[in-house]
Amino acid sequence: MKGFVYIVGAGPGDPELLTVKAMRALEASDVVLHDDLVSPEILSLVPARALVVNVGKRCGKKAISQEQIEDLMVTHANAGRVVVRLKGGDPAIFGRLAGEIDALRRAGTPFQIIPGVTSALAAAAGAQIPLTDRRCASSVVFVPGHRQSGMPEWRNFVASGATLVIYMPGSSYGALARDLRGSGLRADTPCLIVSRAGAAQQLTVRTTLRKLAQTAPLPSPALLVVGEVAARPEASAPRTERPDLDAHAVVDVFADGAEAGSFGQ
Amino acid sequence: MKGFVYIVGAGPGDPELLTVKAMRALEASDVVLHDDLVSPEILSLVPARALVVNVGKRCGKKAISQEQIEDLMVTHANAGRVVVRLKGGDPAIFGRLAGEIDALRRAGTPFQIIPGVTSALAAAAGAQIPLTDRRCASSVVFVPGHRQSGMPEWRNFVASGATLVIYMPGSSYGALARDLRGSGLRADTPCLIVSRAGAAQQLTVRTTLRKLAQTAPLPSPALLVVGEVAARPEASAPRTERPDLDAHAVVDVFADGAEAGSFGQ
Repeated sequence: MKGFVYIVGAGPGDPELLTVKAMRALEASDVVLHDDLVSPEILSLVPARALVVNVGKRCGKKAISQEQIEDLMVTHANAGRVVVRLKGGDPAIFGRLAGEIDALRRAGTPFQIIPGVTSALAAAAGAQIPLTDRRCASSVVFVPGHRQSGMPEWRNFVASGATLVIYMPGSSYGALARDLRGSGLRADTPCLIVSRAGAAQQLTVRTTLRKLAQTAPLPSPALLVVGEVAARPEASAPRTERPDLDAHAVVDVFADGAEAGSFGQ
Repeated sequence: MKGFVYIVGAGPGDPELLTVKAMRALEASDVVLHDDLVSPEILSLVPARALVVNVGKRCGKKAISQEQIEDLMVTHANAGRVVVRLKGGDPAIFGRLAGEIDALRRAGTPFQIIPGVTSALAAAAGAQIPLTDRRCASSVVFVPGHRQSGMPEWRNFVASGATLVIYMPGSSYGALARDLRGSGLRADTPCLIVSRAGAAQQLTVRTTLRKLAQTAPLPSPALLVVGEVAARPEASAPRTERPDLDAHAVVDVFADGAEAGSFGQ
């Protein structure tokens, strides 16, 4: 009997933000190959009988090569096992999905992709902002913050008027802030930095492009929302959460002046 | 006792692609105010005691105004009820979220946003493609296909090299195809149209920009992925799905020549 591979989006970290289908794939798994970004709370849902392998980066260095990951998927599936390849967020967004799909196809290994809540969506929900708004941003761009060959120019995105969601903005926001201002964005453009979106340890900092370079970087994984939608909500925004559905405290840290405060549950 | 509003992303239609948290919010609901895009399968999860109101558009016309929707949310919550405002996909993406948030804040009604799987992610998963790929598209744009004031120019997005995901491409692809080609995209740029992404009735058509104008429009809701990531997967792509996790047949319709075929389960 041939096994099967589920390539699963684990969402932003909170097990409650797994899809029902992802949860069931985990429960059915014999082998779980997971990235570093997948939270311990989610891994605790894996059945005790399953083999769990961290195939993620450590300190930016892969302990295991991409080729080895692909070999593991194919080998375990071809031995008749149900393999879950568990990725943070959604597999199609910055998930290095293409190579793994190609490997599964070459090997003739049957697979299915289960989408997940990408962290931009969890960050927006947590910060109570939309990512598109008919009044100020008719579109949204997901773009990586780290430099690589083929990196699109910021100028095109800025000119489009889209909300920018910058994944992995890095350990210093100075270069990003400079590039964005140099591309024509106004200094008072609202910015929102969200660390560990959707997880119990979520942190949010609201600032402006002017002050972004001086803003202390938040713990990774983080993302940066740039655009009018990131403007501070009204001060009266209620942060109460119903304890029956949400056991996690959300701590908001505001970096931008007088209204600074922190909210527990 | 004061009630509560959950603004919930229902995902693309398949109840299995609800998040666990969304499912629990539905189970806890006294009132559900839902858009048309929310599937009957998902509405069947609402408890029998709950009041269910369709506040969506019918034939492009709202039967109920946005102001009335906001009033309903606030009134029911202030009467002590748990209100679920259920939106297709994710609330932050083309969800007209801003106005509803503002109304809840003005009224001092406590609320929480539960993110969902936006249809671009479900479409990519169903079609087994990534939306970003280090080799050819380092970023992705979600953009509405219908014209409105403030519509960003396609030229900026095309110049950026991002994958374009066009939500609601409309009932004819001619104007879109013309705009995209006029903005500098090559005629052989791969296009993928996905109708009812993630639902039992999902349909997929792969084509190129050259042939897009002549492609018969798929049933709404649909979206169009434009870019190298949308290229046809290898012919050997296994489409088998494990029946224990996936009860839905996926029908793929290929519009683009000799390799046309359709796959059941």
